[in-house]
Amino acid sequence: MGVVDSLPGRRARMVAVGVIRSDADLSTDLRLLKIAEGLDAWLDEHVPDVVAVERVFAQHNVGTVMGTAQAAGLAMLGAARRGVPVALHTPSEVKAAVTGSGRADKAQVTTMITRILDLDEPPRPADAADALALAVCHLWRPAGALQGGDRHELTPAQRAWAAAEQAAKQRPRR
Amino acid sequence: MGVVDSLPGRRARMVAVGVIRSDADLSTDLRLLKIAEGLDAWLDEHVPDVVAVERVFAQHNVGTVMGTAQAAGLAMLGAARRGVPVALHTPSEVKAAVTGSGRADKAQVTTMITRILDLDEPPRPADAADALALAVCHLWRPAGALQGGDRHELTPAQRAWAAAEQAAKQRPRR
Repeated sequence: MGVVDSLPGRRARMVAVGVIRSDADLSTDLRLLKIAEGLDAWLDEHVPDVVAVERVFAQHNVGTVMGTAQAAGLAMLGAARRGVPVALHTPSEVKAAVTGSGRADKAQVTTMITRILDLDEPPRPADAADALALAVCHLWRPAGALQGGDRHELTPAQRAWAAAEQAAKQRPRR
Repeated sequence: MGVVDSLPGRRARMVAVGVIRSDADLSTDLRLLKIAEGLDAWLDEHVPDVVAVERVFAQHNVGTVMGTAQAAGLAMLGAARRGVPVALHTPSEVKAAVTGSGRADKAQVTTMITRILDLDEPPRPADAADALALAVCHLWRPAGALQGGDRHELTPAQRAWAAAEQAAKQRPRR
């Protein structure tokens, strides 16, 4: 779980970071309950304008994909119950957004998100750094990935980011 | 969705059958919300002693497995939120329970569940028949598949079924 605020000038500030854990000895139903309760607590505490969730593909990691898909489903449900728009980004999009390469490794993502958010120390575990990177990825490309079409009106902050991104695209890159 | 009551003598009675649908044009978050709301309504109306869910495998049907896994996750979550035990059965177990063959086709499952529940006409669509077959499968083998160990004490009805099943095993088969 990573919560960020958008600041002017394509900057972002970390609000909170953490991991929701469930006991691997519990049955799947009770693990999902634990995760859903954790998600509810985060959503109720931080009241996000948008929730970004990693897009999971069935092709990869057959052993863990079911649980990952189910946890992602709970995040989407928690957001939808609160009327909060959901955005999906692929791991490659997230890596590319924060490191410049869609094939960056976990260490690079951690290094870059620590720098981007001006953190005193790298977020641990790597999954927490991934969550922050996903949030920053979404801040930097808010318009494209939102689900649900016209249901999802952009917040003022998102509009500002979209405008900044548009402006950045029109400037020549070094 | 299929709801059955257990009757004495390994018989079962259909209480309700149906399908929860979500508009394929909606985004995933809103489809999951729709399904969760449907599940909540069924659970609150019927107050089941146990919820049986199909065990999904990542190997099969890569195209639909993510959505199926997420819907199954919502069913498990809905049950867990209400303190209702969850049982998982594989499609093969369900087919074997109602037709005698783990490789039966959908038509056989529909034919047999119509006969077992003494229905006037076959449940439609086939997914609804599958749900009833899953419920009957669980009635006929309640003890083995329950998740969560000692959290899940059997209800009196389940104990009766387990005892009946045990007794049936001890009788010679024709």
